[in-house]
Amino acid sequence: MNFENHYRNLQKKIDNRLISLIKKKYPPNLYEPMKYALSMKGKRIRPVLLIFSCEVLGGSLKDCIDAAIAIEILHDFTLVHDDIMDNDQIRRGNKTVHAKWDKNVGLLCGDGLIALAYSSLIKSDNKHIKRITSIFSGGIVEICEGQSLDKDFESAKNVSMSEYIYMIRKKTGVLMSMSTEIGAILGGGSEKEIAAFRNYGMNLGIAFQIQDDLLDIISDKKILGKQPGSDLSQGKKTYPLILLEQKVNNTEKKKLIKIMKKIKIEKDDMAFTINILNKYGIIDYTKVEIKKRIRRATGYLKDFDNRAENLFKLSEMIAERKY
Amino acid sequence: MNFENHYRNLQKKIDNRLISLIKKKYPPNLYEPMKYALSMKGKRIRPVLLIFSCEVLGGSLKDCIDAAIAIEILHDFTLVHDDIMDNDQIRRGNKTVHAKWDKNVGLLCGDGLIALAYSSLIKSDNKHIKRITSIFSGGIVEICEGQSLDKDFESAKNVSMSEYIYMIRKKTGVLMSMSTEIGAILGGGSEKEIAAFRNYGMNLGIAFQIQDDLLDIISDKKILGKQPGSDLSQGKKTYPLILLEQKVNNTEKKKLIKIMKKIKIEKDDMAFTINILNKYGIIDYTKVEIKKRIRRATGYLKDFDNRAENLFKLSEMIAERKY
Repeated sequence: MNFENHYRNLQKKIDNRLISLIKKKYPPNLYEPMKYALSMKGKRIRPVLLIFSCEVLGGSLKDCIDAAIAIEILHDFTLVHDDIMDNDQIRRGNKTVHAKWDKNVGLLCGDGLIALAYSSLIKSDNKHIKRITSIFSGGIVEICEGQSLDKDFESAKNVSMSEYIYMIRKKTGVLMSMSTEIGAILGGGSEKEIAAFRNYGMNLGIAFQIQDDLLDIISDKKILGKQPGSDLSQGKKTYPLILLEQKVNNTEKKKLIKIMKKIKIEKDDMAFTINILNKYGIIDYTKVEIKKRIRRATGYLKDFDNRAENLFKLSEMIAERKY
Repeated sequence: MNFENHYRNLQKKIDNRLISLIKKKYPPNLYEPMKYALSMKGKRIRPVLLIFSCEVLGGSLKDCIDAAIAIEILHDFTLVHDDIMDNDQIRRGNKTVHAKWDKNVGLLCGDGLIALAYSSLIKSDNKHIKRITSIFSGGIVEICEGQSLDKDFESAKNVSMSEYIYMIRKKTGVLMSMSTEIGAILGGGSEKEIAAFRNYGMNLGIAFQIQDDLLDIISDKKILGKQPGSDLSQGKKTYPLILLEQKVNNTEKKKLIKIMKKIKIEKDDMAFTINILNKYGIIDYTKVEIKKRIRRATGYLKDFDNRAENLFKLSEMIAERKY
């Protein structure tokens, strides 16, 4: 089966599984939002990463589907709680959980999703349960570290590039490295192979986040599924903006700070930001940087040659994604 | 060792373990609140229940301490998130996490605690990991159900006694039944014994919650560690109030509804509520009901005779607690 078909097939399987997990209906203010959060059409990149990783090492879908579902539920939990913290109203073209219900419902929905994720995870093979549950739990704490820093940085005056990279390793890298690491474990990989997959996932995650930062500036609302400029309006320190701060002159800096303090970013503000990003070549530089990091990621899988073809294609897809 | 000393010893061990779990310091806005939440001097009833249950069946502290710690962390997580949802400012005489930091910090702190709870749980004996992790995860979802209903009931006009009991089974009963059930499993109990411990915990939990409801009305601020009347001011449907609604005349009902809509409950309001509760004999009736339910709980352990002495004493303690 070619890459696209395999990916689409897996997406369908993941979507069906996710919806079938919520069988109970009462109380509706818990189960409706949980079902809603799991039904949003996401790209399902993380569970697919986990499955592909398992398959490269000779494992089958049966060996890893429960863990893959757990990873997607965990991802969906982080979205629900992050949207509360960021007060984001729209996600994947739909209202966020807390916007559709309220913040308390969103909070509880996320809590329920974490437990549901573990319920799925521990259906995996007994042999690996302790190890993968330990990676899963340690990973969640690291993701919380990343989210905590992300919020702290919003009100921080200066954030260095190394602080930023540390933060996104936690916020975004860890969830991807958990996916590939758990996939490799369930695929029966050796310790060396498991480490390679973990490193691949981490570097892919970093590239993914930088791409995300860029899309918030240059993407189109229709394609992105939410208003671009949301990071900007929250004063988030993103990759292109950290680079920009090192380049701008005083007049530009003042205007940029003013924009970042706004609650609603106007078209003019976006145009100004894109304009100076282009002036200093930062958009192109960032695109090159993403490709470099994707190459660094896939470098960890070079020993697997053609066997890792699906992961190479997936990595390419990430580098070129528009939303 | 007598009951009091054994209990106090365990409390100390639990407290020390909890604090030692948080070794990292960065980022401070994640780890400080996590440490704070775990350091609040609680009664540690749930982990002690778990340990006693394990011991009755011949298990040792070593067999169950990690699971006991996991249960306490889980409990502390529910407090942190519930306090956000209820907007409670004071807990155990101290500021709640979200009051000391902010709601986002509280949200993330709770999320981190869930993962930490699992990290501790899976240190338990491999033989039981899958089963106890499954109980743990299913339990968390049920606790979310209970909390969801509790919030729904605040704005519901009428809540029947059976709806109320259903809600507190989930909100409070499940965490206690998880404690005794997991303790029994780790103690090597038979299926019949495990079921008995689960039932004991559930009934004890129901009694505990009714007691909690009563204390919110009749207790003293100094002893309770927070302002009494907090349930009342949130319009929570509690055991005595549901009984009361069936008894009051129209004038009393109107006044009661007015009080329950207030944001701040005055001394006069409390006095009025206590007064009519006494008039209809509800406070005494509730006290009797708590004792009955405690007896029903301990009835499940009658086959263990003297071996369950510590649990009998703990149950008595719960029936007589003042905070």
